[in-house]
Amino acid sequence: MNDGSCFHNLKAGGIVRELAPGVTARVFPGVNAMLSVVTLEPHSTSPVHSHANEQWGVCLEGEWVRIQDGVEHHVKAGDFWQTPPHVPHGGRTLASRCVVLDIFAPPREEYRQAGQGLGAASLAT
Amino acid sequence: MNDGSCFHNLKAGGIVRELAPGVTARVFPGVNAMLSVVTLEPHSTSPVHSHANEQWGVCLEGEWVRIQDGVEHHVKAGDFWQTPPHVPHGGRTLASRCVVLDIFAPPREEYRQAGQGLGAASLAT
Repeated sequence: MNDGSCFHNLKAGGIVRELAPGVTARVFPGVNAMLSVVTLEPHSTSPVHSHANEQWGVCLEGEWVRIQDGVEHHVKAGDFWQTPPHVPHGGRTLASRCVVLDIFAPPREEYRQAGQGLGAASLAT
Repeated sequence: MNDGSCFHNLKAGGIVRELAPGVTARVFPGVNAMLSVVTLEPHSTSPVHSHANEQWGVCLEGEWVRIQDGVEHHVKAGDFWQTPPHVPHGGRTLASRCVVLDIFAPPREEYRQAGQGLGAASLAT
């Protein structure tokens, strides 16, 4: 359902951002938090980066290699994780598609508009 | 998976709180946000209440009648919603069990400890 205000569905809507090749987000901004439904195509890479915003991720479909603080975690649907502020994180898919719900608190201000890339995050070097 | 730190699974763990009869939460506190996996038994009621914390809910399993700002919304798995600060909200299940992922930003401080009830929320009168 989507009545145009506070009610949405994970499958539709949101502000579209291409975070990386094959990694697309649909963003739903709030006041103190922001939700982002991220679809990751097979064999795609999310560059390791960091930001001051706390982040949580919930694997909704498929599986993913979550890279966090230099460690690889093989996560599957139903797994979820906290990424504290400033902790470097990214990931890569395997042979299948993956869907992850990201939660940012506070919101990532750059993600309030459609566009490309990881916004003001610091990329790992 | 659960490595004892930042990685969890929706089916296990967390700080247990009984929010209302038949409504049980497993709470995962963060810095700026808090996640809570809420299991609602059939024919259970979540009393309408409000608080300053922004809240988001994601219906993970089943269906629910979400009551928000005086309006009833019949939500199903895959639906999600924002509840802005101070907006009265609650709900009731129908004949089946429902699982909802609640997200609070900032965290509800009372929910950092096991216990009962809706904490410092204001109940509707």
